[in-house]
Amino acid sequence: MAWTKVMPANPVVAVAGATGAVGREMLKCLEALNFPASEVRVLASARSAGQKLPFAGCGQVPAGELTVEEMTEESFKGVDIALFSAGASISKKFRQACYDAGAVMIDNSSAFRVEKDVPLVVPEVNAADIAWHNGVIANPNCTTIQMVVALEPLRALGHIDRIIVSSYQSASGAGAKGMAELEDQTGKYLAGEPFEPSAFAHQIAFNCIPHIDVFVDGDYLNDVPEGYTKEEWKMVVETKKIFGDNTVEVAPTCVRVPVLRCHSESINVEFDRPVNIEDVKNALANGTHVVLEDDPANNVYPMPGLHRGAFDTFVGRVRRDHTVADNRGVAMWVVADQLLRGAALNAVYIAQALLPEA
Amino acid sequence: MAWTKVMPANPVVAVAGATGAVGREMLKCLEALNFPASEVRVLASARSAGQKLPFAGCGQVPAGELTVEEMTEESFKGVDIALFSAGASISKKFRQACYDAGAVMIDNSSAFRVEKDVPLVVPEVNAADIAWHNGVIANPNCTTIQMVVALEPLRALGHIDRIIVSSYQSASGAGAKGMAELEDQTGKYLAGEPFEPSAFAHQIAFNCIPHIDVFVDGDYLNDVPEGYTKEEWKMVVETKKIFGDNTVEVAPTCVRVPVLRCHSESINVEFDRPVNIEDVKNALANGTHVVLEDDPANNVYPMPGLHRGAFDTFVGRVRRDHTVADNRGVAMWVVADQLLRGAALNAVYIAQALLPEA
Repeated sequence: MAWTKVMPANPVVAVAGATGAVGREMLKCLEALNFPASEVRVLASARSAGQKLPFAGCGQVPAGELTVEEMTEESFKGVDIALFSAGASISKKFRQACYDAGAVMIDNSSAFRVEKDVPLVVPEVNAADIAWHNGVIANPNCTTIQMVVALEPLRALGHIDRIIVSSYQSASGAGAKGMAELEDQTGKYLAGEPFEPSAFAHQIAFNCIPHIDVFVDGDYLNDVPEGYTKEEWKMVVETKKIFGDNTVEVAPTCVRVPVLRCHSESINVEFDRPVNIEDVKNALANGTHVVLEDDPANNVYPMPGLHRGAFDTFVGRVRRDHTVADNRGVAMWVVADQLLRGAALNAVYIAQALLPEA
Repeated sequence: MAWTKVMPANPVVAVAGATGAVGREMLKCLEALNFPASEVRVLASARSAGQKLPFAGCGQVPAGELTVEEMTEESFKGVDIALFSAGASISKKFRQACYDAGAVMIDNSSAFRVEKDVPLVVPEVNAADIAWHNGVIANPNCTTIQMVVALEPLRALGHIDRIIVSSYQSASGAGAKGMAELEDQTGKYLAGEPFEPSAFAHQIAFNCIPHIDVFVDGDYLNDVPEGYTKEEWKMVVETKKIFGDNTVEVAPTCVRVPVLRCHSESINVEFDRPVNIEDVKNALANGTHVVLEDDPANNVYPMPGLHRGAFDTFVGRVRRDHTVADNRGVAMWVVADQLLRGAALNAVYIAQALLPEA
């Protein structure tokens, strides 16, 4: 039975993990979308308490500074929507406090994504799933979000049977420290100075690391073949859940590349019936929050170094995968800002979907 | 009818394009393999004539310096093996001169690769094809070479029906100027200084460019679907030719990444019958010039930033592709030095294969 709450038109919003890379972007998204908040609370660990965060204002909240408060169980009293991006253990720790306070938790961590009564939502795809939440709505993993946003417009053309995806993931997936390490380490590499990897298991400067999140040890989910990372298996499980379709198969390879904050994905899709490439392009061009950027003759295609800060998901290199029979195959290249589309923005879009109809 | 030539045990070798990134590596390969040359001539454009190249010696050639000569039609008189890496137009220009001089041209450009009477050779795979050359043997494209070297050991396990490959290609594919531009531009990016792309169509620092070589305009080869690059279509055509198998289908996406000189490839392979993953790993471990580097528990997998200068092709992340029925699918990650395995070393291996049996 779904948890019910009458959401006020001007909710109190808490941002938990407000000083992190995603938390800061959540504040920018609230500003950019002029989210109709009556109050915005910024919560973080005791270490950050008292810090002032500039805020351009949104809804009934004026421009000015927001003062970081230490997150405790008391922090959620009076909160309507709690945007969490402080890691899985923090989300687990404060789940009950949010529930007790009547705050809907929108959680960016992987803590609850596979729980049966927790909707996993990308509003452009499955906003309807919000209806059955029980206090927690999970934000999917960044790699999954941009893939399903790009593929959603194509589901009207036929059933997607199989997706083979190789990712080119940015340093921002490891947070602000990941981006800082990429820049700092690259500078040291160029100067011939020594460096020690910290945010990543290996050197990231001028390197690719085919390993993101832990290797799945068999406990994470049933029937994971040996040798996959959790990051990869998230794409398998989350895509099925968001599409509400257990028959879509995903074969992922997730790779970290020396890019700052946009992820790219090389995707081969197999449909259950023939699809026309022009129809695919038209569907993408008309997709929600999707931009078709596909003009090879003029060297136009999405590139992760050039879409920093973008809200949309960019698709290009759309072409026939000639190795799938009966014109059922399509290949494409998808780029989106990892901190925004892949995390903060998706969470704020979910918050928007919780608002009462105007 | 194949061109016949009695190759002397100590041939005269010419390196055409000796001052380029690949040419320099060709000299290093001759040294490293102690190629039994009686003479090594280094040829380049008039601009480089007179330049001295250090050489550690090989065969009957003592250590010392080699003096660059201007390449003319006269340069090939007395030459037995001419290693070309000076661009397709130069290869075309000097083909006849090599033929007339009785020099076997081993050409690293794409000039002759699809010609019916020009063998396209990766010695570990199809050394036998050398027998039917008519004066020219083509070196395949770098992305194709490392893929077929990695897949060759698996062909004993079943027929490879389909390959889906996404590449992560290094700046060295654009030669010495590509590597210099990546380093220089990255330094400028970090310093906040302006830069102008030159070797690449777009910024390469902290970026990925899903475009290598020209977009195929329909003239390059028959039946290329719209939207592919020549780099991608080379993988389709060259893989069939090297494997001598028109039924192997290749679906490629080629992407430039900010890495200096090793290419990486994310590969999903579909066999015609079930394959066992342990058998795949064993076959790779026993493959010629293949190193299985696959110990996820200890964060061991191939990485392009760490294999600069390596002769071998490294394979890791070997696992079941669970989206292919009947256990016929395998996924893997392949890394090799682009200038060596993907170019210079392959050419010198071909030269070795031309030598008379000892």
